[in-house]
Amino acid sequence: MAAPSPTRPRRLLPLSLGLFQGALLLFFAIFVTYDEPSARVEDANLVANQLYGIFPLFQDIQVMLVVGLGLLLTFLPLYGLSAIAHNFLLLNFSTQWALVLQGLLHHFHHGQVHLDLHNLLTAEFAAVTVLISVGAVLGRTSPCQLLVVAICEVPIYLASEWAIVTRLGVLDVGGTITIHVFSCYFGLGVSKALFGAARQPVHPKETPTPRSDLLSLVGTLILWVFWPSFVAVLCQPGDAQHRAILNTLLAMSASAVTTVVASSLLERDGKLSPGHLQNGSLAGGVAIGVVADMAVPPVAALALGSLSAVACVLGFRFLTPLLARKLALQDQCGIHNLHGLPGILGAAASAVAILVASEDTSGSRFSQVSPVGGNASEAVGGRWGDRGAGRQALCQAAGLAVAIGGSLLAGLLTGAALRLPCLARPPEQLCFDDSLYFNIQDQAESPGPGSTAEEEALALKERV
Amino acid sequence: MAAPSPTRPRRLLPLSLGLFQGALLLFFAIFVTYDEPSARVEDANLVANQLYGIFPLFQDIQVMLVVGLGLLLTFLPLYGLSAIAHNFLLLNFSTQWALVLQGLLHHFHHGQVHLDLHNLLTAEFAAVTVLISVGAVLGRTSPCQLLVVAICEVPIYLASEWAIVTRLGVLDVGGTITIHVFSCYFGLGVSKALFGAARQPVHPKETPTPRSDLLSLVGTLILWVFWPSFVAVLCQPGDAQHRAILNTLLAMSASAVTTVVASSLLERDGKLSPGHLQNGSLAGGVAIGVVADMAVPPVAALALGSLSAVACVLGFRFLTPLLARKLALQDQCGIHNLHGLPGILGAAASAVAILVASEDTSGSRFSQVSPVGGNASEAVGGRWGDRGAGRQALCQAAGLAVAIGGSLLAGLLTGAALRLPCLARPPEQLCFDDSLYFNIQDQAESPGPGSTAEEEALALKERV
Amino acid sequence: MAAPSPTRPRRLLPLSLGLFQGALLLFFAIFVTYDEPSARVEDANLVANQLYGIFPLFQDIQVMLVVGLGLLLTFLPLYGLSAIAHNFLLLNFSTQWALVLQGLLHHFHHGQVHLDLHNLLTAEFAAVTVLISVGAVLGRTSPCQLLVVAICEVPIYLASEWAIVTRLGVLDVGGTITIHVFSCYFGLGVSKALFGAARQPVHPKETPTPRSDLLSLVGTLILWVFWPSFVAVLCQPGDAQHRAILNTLLAMSASAVTTVVASSLLERDGKLSPGHLQNGSLAGGVAIGVVADMAVPPVAALALGSLSAVACVLGFRFLTPLLARKLALQDQCGIHNLHGLPGILGAAASAVAILVASEDTSGSRFSQVSPVGGNASEAVGGRWGDRGAGRQALCQAAGLAVAIGGSLLAGLLTGAALRLPCLARPPEQLCFDDSLYFNIQDQAESPGPGSTAEEEALALKERV
Repeated sequence: MAAPSPTRPRRLLPLSLGLFQGALLLFFAIFVTYDEPSARVEDANLVANQLYGIFPLFQDIQVMLVVGLGLLLTFLPLYGLSAIAHNFLLLNFSTQWALVLQGLLHHFHHGQVHLDLHNLLTAEFAAVTVLISVGAVLGRTSPCQLLVVAICEVPIYLASEWAIVTRLGVLDVGGTITIHVFSCYFGLGVSKALFGAARQPVHPKETPTPRSDLLSLVGTLILWVFWPSFVAVLCQPGDAQHRAILNTLLAMSASAVTTVVASSLLERDGKLSPGHLQNGSLAGGVAIGVVADMAVPPVAALALGSLSAVACVLGFRFLTPLLARKLALQDQCGIHNLHGLPGILGAAASAVAILVASEDTSGSRFSQVSPVGGNASEAVGGRWGDRGAGRQALCQAAGLAVAIGGSLLAGLLTGAALRLPCLARPPEQLCFDDSLYFNIQDQAESPGPGSTAEEEALALKERV
Repeated sequence: MAAPSPTRPRRLLPLSLGLFQGALLLFFAIFVTYDEPSARVEDANLVANQLYGIFPLFQDIQVMLVVGLGLLLTFLPLYGLSAIAHNFLLLNFSTQWALVLQGLLHHFHHGQVHLDLHNLLTAEFAAVTVLISVGAVLGRTSPCQLLVVAICEVPIYLASEWAIVTRLGVLDVGGTITIHVFSCYFGLGVSKALFGAARQPVHPKETPTPRSDLLSLVGTLILWVFWPSFVAVLCQPGDAQHRAILNTLLAMSASAVTTVVASSLLERDGKLSPGHLQNGSLAGGVAIGVVADMAVPPVAALALGSLSAVACVLGFRFLTPLLARKLALQDQCGIHNLHGLPGILGAAASAVAILVASEDTSGSRFSQVSPVGGNASEAVGGRWGDRGAGRQALCQAAGLAVAIGGSLLAGLLTGAALRLPCLARPPEQLCFDDSLYFNIQDQAESPGPGSTAEEEALALKERV
Repeated sequence: MAAPSPTRPRRLLPLSLGLFQGALLLFFAIFVTYDEPSARVEDANLVANQLYGIFPLFQDIQVMLVVGLGLLLTFLPLYGLSAIAHNFLLLNFSTQWALVLQGLLHHFHHGQVHLDLHNLLTAEFAAVTVLISVGAVLGRTSPCQLLVVAICEVPIYLASEWAIVTRLGVLDVGGTITIHVFSCYFGLGVSKALFGAARQPVHPKETPTPRSDLLSLVGTLILWVFWPSFVAVLCQPGDAQHRAILNTLLAMSASAVTTVVASSLLERDGKLSPGHLQNGSLAGGVAIGVVADMAVPPVAALALGSLSAVACVLGFRFLTPLLARKLALQDQCGIHNLHGLPGILGAAASAVAILVASEDTSGSRFSQVSPVGGNASEAVGGRWGDRGAGRQALCQAAGLAVAIGGSLLAGLLTGAALRLPCLARPPEQLCFDDSLYFNIQDQAESPGPGSTAEEEALALKERV
C-alpha cells in the first residue's frame, strides 16, 4: 500500500551506520581499555561493593530508556514499531558516539581511556538528550534525519554540560537543566527549522486509539517507577542519595495526583485526557532533579511536584495549541510541557532553595520547627564553598539561560541541516506509518478481493 | 456515544483531590522533615549500605503495584485505561493519606515526623489494601467512590494492623493476614453493601478477549517475579530474609504448576482458563507471607503453594458462582479466591508451623532427618519469647478472626457510604467502559456515515 | 470453532504434572532442607551482603525468563496466551525437575540437600535450555510434548554441563557453549526427528501482525536490558564481574546497531525486518558469554557483538530458508540464528582470546599500547593453571564439539519420542491457535448470525 519511491536513498542509513561502527571499532582498538584488575583483596571488595551500589540503579535507567520511553512513544497507533525501534537505535548510537567524544575530549591526555560503568552512564545521559529532543518531530522524520540530530546534539550537549556544570558550577544532580531543559529547546529548535513557517495539518494517523494510549501509559508507569534511580544514581552515596530518592518519590507522587486534578478540571465533562496522564505524572521527576539532593524540606518536593504537573497540563491545554497557531511550532510529544516548563520551574526552585537554606543558618537558628534543619545549608553550602548563596543562585539562573539559549540556537542549525534532501524526510501521506520503515505483512489486515472466505475470517480474527 | 448526563457532579473528584493535596502540603510543611545527615563517616556508610539493601526491593514492589497490578486489571477489554489509571491514582492517594495518618498517629509525640524510605514503604503497604479491595467492585464504581474506599480503608487498616501485630503479637512478615485477608473481606463487605441484594447481570463488556487476557497475564507474570521482594522487604536482613525469599520462590513455583493441573482438570476439554492462570499462579505468594521467615522446611513452602493454588482455582470454579447465586455477592476480580482463601490457608499454616517447630525442639531432638533443623524453633521461639507456642498459635488464629471480622464490618459500612448519590456511581450500561472517564477518540473505532472511504480504511487499519 | 476431538487424551497433562508435584513434595520432604542459620553476627552480616549482591541479579534473570522471553514468543498473533503460558509452565517445571536431579546427583552423598539461592539459580539455568530448545517447534507441539522435552533435556544438560565444565575445564561463565549452543542443537534435533522429512507448509496463522511484532519487540528489549545480569551473575564478585558487565553491555550495543545495518542492507527497499531486530539485537549477548570475564579488550566485545548480529541476520535471510529447503528443518523462532551461530562465534572467540592473552604476556610485554594490559593473561591464566593456553584453547573447541554433538543426538532421540500418539500433537489446522489450549470467549470476535446489532457494535469495538 505504502510503496516508497525507488529514488529515495535507502542505502544511506545502513552505509553511514556501518561506517560509524567501523570507526568505533578502530577508536576502541587504539584508545580504550579497561581498568587494571585490583591487586589487593580490599580493593577487589571495594570494586564489588561499588558495583552492587551502582549496578541496580544502572539497570533501572536502562529499563526506563529502552522499555519505558519506547512504550511511551507508542501512542501513535500505526507507528509503534518505528517509535520503539528508532528510540532503541538512537539510544545505542548516541551512547557510542558520546563514548567516542568523551574519550577524545576528556580523557585523551591520559593516553588510554579507561572504560567503566560510570563512563557508560554519563554517555547514556548524553544519549537521553537525543531521545527527548526527537520527541518534537516524532513520526515526521526519517531515521537518517534522527541520526543527524544525534550526531549534532551529543557534542553540543557535552559542551553545554561542561559550560554549565564545570565552568558555572551549577548544581544539577538529576539533570533538570543540563538534560531536560537543554534537550527540550534543542528539539523545539530542530522542529522549527525543519518544518519552517508552514503549520502542519492534523494527520489522520496521529490520533491515538485507546489501545495505543494504554501501551503508552504503561510506558509512563515504567518511567514513573524508576525515575528515582535516574535522579539519584550520580549522588553521593549515603544521606544525599537517600534524600534524593525520597524527594523524587514525593514529587512523583504529588505529580500523579495533581495531574488528575488539573486534567479533569480542564477537560470537558470532567473526564481525563490520556495524554495529560502520560506526561503530567512524570513532570515532578523532571523538576525535582536539580534540587533532589539539596537540603530542602519534604514539603518543597511535594509542592514542586504539584506545580510541575499543573504547568505540564496547562501547557498541553493552552500553550502547545498557542505555539502551533502563533509560531507554527510543531511539538508532537509535547516535550515542552514535560521537559521544558517543569525544568524551568525546577531551576527556579533550586535558586530559591539555595537562598532559603543560606538564610536559615545565618538567621533563625533558634526556630524550633525549621523544616530545613540545623546543618542543612552546611550540607549544601559545602558544595558551593565560599562563593556565597546569592552568587550560587545567580549561577543556577545563568546555567538555565545558557541551556535554553545554546540549545535553541544549536537546534535551529541542526534542524536546517535536516532539510537536506538526501536525508529522505518522509512525504506527508506516509508519516506516522510503520510500513515505511518495516517489512510488515499487509495481507492480514486488508485482505484483497481475491482472498478466500477462510483467509478473511482469519484476518478478522487476527485483528482481535 | 457514551454521553454522560450533565447533572452528574463531575467536579467532585478534582475538587476533593485538590483539597486533599492542599491539606497534605500543609501537614508536611508543619510536621514532616528528613533525618539529620549523619555526622560521622561510618554512619554515612551505614546509611549507604542500608539503602543498597532496601532500595532494590522497594523498586521491585513499586513495579509490582504500579505496572504489574495495573496490567493484571486490564482483563476487561474496554476498561484498560481506567483500570490502570484508577489503580495508579489510588496507590498515590492512599500512600499520601497513610503518610498523614501514620504521622499523626504514631510519630506525633516526637514533635517532628522524620520521613525515610521505611515510612514510605509501610504507607505503601496500607495503600495495597485499598488496591486489593477495590478489585471486588472494579468497573462498576466511579473514581469518587474509589476515593471514599481509600479514605475509609486506610485508617481502619492502620488500626487493624496495630491490633493484630502490636497488641496480639501476630507474626506476619509478608502481610498475609494484615494485608491480604483484611483487604479481601473489606472489599467483599463494600461490594455487598454497595450492590445490595440485587444480583448484577452479566455485562456484555465484562468478557475478556484473548488480547486483554494476554496483557493481564503479563501483569500476573510481573507480580509473580517480584513477589519475593514484597514478602522479604521487612524481614531481618541475613538468614531470615534469605529464607523468606527461598520460601516464596518455592511457593510461587508450586502454585504455577499446580494451577495448570487444577485448571485443566476442572475446565471442559482439559483446556486452561486464562483467569485461573492469572490468579492461581500468585496464590502461593499470598499464603506464604505469614510463614515465610519462620523455620519451616522447604517442603512446607511447596505444599502451601500447591494447596493455595488448588483453593484459588476451586474458588473460581465453584465458590464465586455459589456466592453470587446465594448471597448476590459480586467479586469482579475474584479477590476472595486470590487473597481470601490462600490467606486463610496461610494463617492456618502459620499456627501449625509454630506448634510443630516447638514440638521439634522439646521432643524429637535426636531425629536424624528432621527437616526443620536443631535450632529452628529457637529462631522462631525467640520472637514469641516466653509466651509459649500454643499461645502464639492461638494468637495467629485470633489475628485472623480480627482481620476477617473487623474488615467485613468496616467494609459493609464503607459500602453503604458509597451509595450516596453524589458519588456518581456509573449507570449499568456505561460500566466497564473507558469512555466514561477518558476523553478518547471514538471516530477511529466507529466511523460515522459521513466518513470517507479513506478514513474508513484507516479506521480498519488502526484496529489491527 | 476449533472443537478438539474428544478422543484426545486431555487428562494426560494434568495427571502427569500432578504426579510430578507429588513426587517433588516427597523428595523435598525427605531430602531437602535449608542451611542452618548463622550462629555469629559476622556470619549473618556476610549472608546479608551476599544476598544483596546476588538477589538483584537473580530478579533480573527472572524478569528475562518469565516476562522478556514470554513476550518475545508472542510474535504469533493468535498464539500469544499459549506461548507465554507454556513458557511459564516449562520454566517452573524444568526448574523443579533440575532441583530434584541436582539434589540426587550432586549432593546426595551429603545426606541432606541444602537449598540456597545459588542452587535455585543453577536449576533455573538448566530450565533455560528447555525454553530455548522448544522455540524450534513453537506452535506445532502440545504441552505434553513440551513436558517430555523438559524431562529429557534437563538431565542431558546436567550431564553435558558436567562433561564440558567439570571434566574438560571449559571456561564459559555466561553459558554460551553449555546453555545456548547446547539447547539450540538439542532443539533442532527435536524438530528434525519430530517433523521428519516432510516440509511443513506455511501456516496462515504464523505470519506476525504489526501488533504481535510490537509486543515481541518489547520482549526483546526486556531481554536486552537485563542480559548483563544473566552473564555476570556467576562471575567472581569484583573486577571479573565488572568486566563481564561492561563486555556484555558493549556487545549488546554493537549488536543493536549492526542489526539495523545488516537488516536494511538485506531487505527490500532498505526497510527493516521486525524478526531481525527481535533476534539480532540479542546475538551479541549470546556470543559474549564465554569471553565476558576474560581479559579481552573492549574492542573485542564490540567486534564480537557486531559479528554475531551479522551472522544472525544472515542466518535468518539465507540459512534458515536453505535448511528448510534442503533438510526440511523447521525452526519456528530461528533459534539457530540467535543461539547457534552466535554461540559458535563466541566459542571460537574464546579460543582466540586465550591464545592472544597468553602470547601477550610471554611476548610483547614492552608494547606501550597493548589493549589487553600487563597482567591480563595472569587473570585468565590463573584459571587454567599450568595447563597451557594452547591446551585450554583446544578444550574450548572440544567443549563446543561435545555440546553440538551430544545435544544433536539427544535431541533426535527426544524428538522421536515426541511422535508417540498419546502426546497429542496438534493437527495442522489447529496449530498456532490459542483456542486449542484455552477456554477463550469466541463470541466477541465472531458474532453469530443471531446476534443483535448492539452486540455486533460491541464486538467491533472490542477489537480496537
